[in-house]
Amino acid sequence: MVKTYRSPRGFRDLTPEIMILRKKIFSEIEEVFRRYGFDPIETPAMEYWETLSGKYGEEAENRLIWRFKDPWSNKEYALRYDLTVPLVRFISTHPEIQLPFKRYQIGPVWRHDEPQKGRYREFYQCDADIIGSPYPEADAEMVNLLIDSLKSIGWNSGFTVRLNDRRLLFGIFESELKINPIVNVYRIIDKLDKIGLKKVEEELNREIKNEEMVKEILYLISLKGSPEELLELLLRKYKKNKYVKEASEYLKEVMDLVKENDKVVLDLSLVRGLDYYTGPIYEVVLEKPKIGSVSGGGRYDNLAKMFSGRNLPATGVSIGVERLIDAGIEIGLYNIKEKTYTQVQVVFMGYANFKYAWNITMKLREAGINTRIELNRTKEETQRRKANRMQIPVLIFVGKEEETQNIATVYSTTSNKRIRVKVDDVQKAVKDLLGIDQ
Amino acid sequence: MVKTYRSPRGFRDLTPEIMILRKKIFSEIEEVFRRYGFDPIETPAMEYWETLSGKYGEEAENRLIWRFKDPWSNKEYALRYDLTVPLVRFISTHPEIQLPFKRYQIGPVWRHDEPQKGRYREFYQCDADIIGSPYPEADAEMVNLLIDSLKSIGWNSGFTVRLNDRRLLFGIFESELKINPIVNVYRIIDKLDKIGLKKVEEELNREIKNEEMVKEILYLISLKGSPEELLELLLRKYKKNKYVKEASEYLKEVMDLVKENDKVVLDLSLVRGLDYYTGPIYEVVLEKPKIGSVSGGGRYDNLAKMFSGRNLPATGVSIGVERLIDAGIEIGLYNIKEKTYTQVQVVFMGYANFKYAWNITMKLREAGINTRIELNRTKEETQRRKANRMQIPVLIFVGKEEETQNIATVYSTTSNKRIRVKVDDVQKAVKDLLGIDQ
Repeated sequence: MVKTYRSPRGFRDLTPEIMILRKKIFSEIEEVFRRYGFDPIETPAMEYWETLSGKYGEEAENRLIWRFKDPWSNKEYALRYDLTVPLVRFISTHPEIQLPFKRYQIGPVWRHDEPQKGRYREFYQCDADIIGSPYPEADAEMVNLLIDSLKSIGWNSGFTVRLNDRRLLFGIFESELKINPIVNVYRIIDKLDKIGLKKVEEELNREIKNEEMVKEILYLISLKGSPEELLELLLRKYKKNKYVKEASEYLKEVMDLVKENDKVVLDLSLVRGLDYYTGPIYEVVLEKPKIGSVSGGGRYDNLAKMFSGRNLPATGVSIGVERLIDAGIEIGLYNIKEKTYTQVQVVFMGYANFKYAWNITMKLREAGINTRIELNRTKEETQRRKANRMQIPVLIFVGKEEETQNIATVYSTTSNKRIRVKVDDVQKAVKDLLGIDQ
Repeated sequence: MVKTYRSPRGFRDLTPEIMILRKKIFSEIEEVFRRYGFDPIETPAMEYWETLSGKYGEEAENRLIWRFKDPWSNKEYALRYDLTVPLVRFISTHPEIQLPFKRYQIGPVWRHDEPQKGRYREFYQCDADIIGSPYPEADAEMVNLLIDSLKSIGWNSGFTVRLNDRRLLFGIFESELKINPIVNVYRIIDKLDKIGLKKVEEELNREIKNEEMVKEILYLISLKGSPEELLELLLRKYKKNKYVKEASEYLKEVMDLVKENDKVVLDLSLVRGLDYYTGPIYEVVLEKPKIGSVSGGGRYDNLAKMFSGRNLPATGVSIGVERLIDAGIEIGLYNIKEKTYTQVQVVFMGYANFKYAWNITMKLREAGINTRIELNRTKEETQRRKANRMQIPVLIFVGKEEETQNIATVYSTTSNKRIRVKVDDVQKAVKDLLGIDQ
């Protein structure tokens, strides 16, 4: 009895169809990152546990980080949980780096989460961060980058950037409304999208036991709209609160530099889970499908201090590219029809013509054309059937006749065009059929 | 007192300079893989321990594989040790995949090795494999691919492909010379490059205690040369040995399809450590620097059986791209001069001109030009100094005069050319200076 081996639960195998789509999407986003002046770095998959510990809050610390002890050195290691904390560790390890430092990193992170639809234990993040600027222009770059990244991969509309600020949350809920402890309240608010306003009200009543206060909270978290207008409203309402004032002025400066400000909505119900945020926070949500946030980010000015003792202002964004791909496939924005990069299959009529076919194959590859030849000495019909299943656009047939005359029969499956050319012209003929500039 | 946090021992941070070089090299190799008809897949960083166990031999099993138990599920996991065993597991998980399956995968693997110069605990492999063909043409594809990959990244000469066959080794050393146990002898032969012929002789004498036999072994492993000629010699010498006969005929067929056969040398001292090889094996060595093998591969027909019970012939190659990069930097083939992808820095004379500069920045990005603007409100001189340190080729200066006249001063640091253009022409002017086709 033979076992079937699988990838671990929550870990995926990616087949060529999905990889071809992913590579295209990743490279579009990478291009936008570069356009905004970000450069790549890479940090290891593993960090010492002490590097990640104390950065993400309780749930991550106790359950979500993949953590283990090396039996040889007894050192504790952890698989990276995101790309942000490793970046800040990187900056502390490399004090020679010139600031502001704009870096991007695209790579997998690991979370010991309960796997479910759209949630995996290994998934990619596409991150861009600016280390070393405390100014609104850095946050504005992040919001513009986010919008341009989404547009570059086909989301021209159908998404909203939800904006909030940790200082607004603090100023209103803690400093004004004096809710204490606040953590559970934030946790309830954070569930608004998932459980709806009614359930949030119930949970808040259970938590706070003060109907007036709950009404006020419900009113505040239902405010959603143009940042410029809502900030005016909040400034009037809490005109003496220095946190509200500071955040509002800051966010106005950000919005003044955001080029498509109709895509941005101020939303006081946006909390975001990670402990390390200190200023503006934002999230991208899609109109459909309704799958929660597909990107997010914010300012985290105090994280660097935990490593180097240096105060280093920082802001960044993480694009949930896999969720965007899943969503795009669901609404028909993307398809996974492309099964191969191969452009040409050289088909030999009989194994007697194999060497001749092989030489044509090598000739095409030399011209930069992605070419396959059957490696299992099967009959011509099988070769054709396999090529068709892979949707290879051009077939080249060579048999006794072709070999004798030193020619090849070139056939385009898309246009049904079939031509016979001299072997010396085969590269050019294929490029013509594929529409490649010579 | 503040601690300095570091990446774990044997794990590296990669800065933009080295990343820019790596990305270029990786993408060249990827292009060659595609040209040969390989398509990408991705398998997870982690596998269940049982998937990797029993595949790589004793040292890997007991020491080199990063292995740990999940405290929640009590399941044993391992970080992947190479990309080959996960590929074969992938094939067993996905029986729907059409054969022969030509896949490439580029990604990190992890080994619990003692770190030293050029040896890391996390390093990238670039692998291409063919699953499902038992024929010499599949192995010939691998050798041609190996040679073309090296050429694509600048190694036009200065390297040799060493070729051998596990069946030759078995036929000669086990079946003819009747050395038993053979494992230690192979281990000694494998060290030839590192410790030299004299030390190998000493160790063999200690192991075998038969001077005649040791002489014969030393003679055999000193044979290096054109595969065609050496195979003739071996066939004459061991004409009745079916393993030698089978391997020789097979390798001759392979060599008949290798296009640059002057780069290939048959070498009976090539053993290669991994347990799973069954047929041809090969390795690339550089003339200089002398750093051991930089790529390798071979046929492993029995590995799939351990997963699915199905017999699946397979052959593949792994390019040690990081070693090649280190070597290329050492001999001056590569340089890490390119510090950024950024093409333009927009410099504002005073913060009063910031918004004007910001709009020009966004305009350039819209035209696909990688553009930065200072995010720290520093003075013009500092902006220039930072841009120069990053070697950004084009600077755009905007001050009061430029803003009033709706123009920009565009300056190329490479040609020292300085021109003033209307804001509407700034995209075109920059593209001209950068030599980008419009």
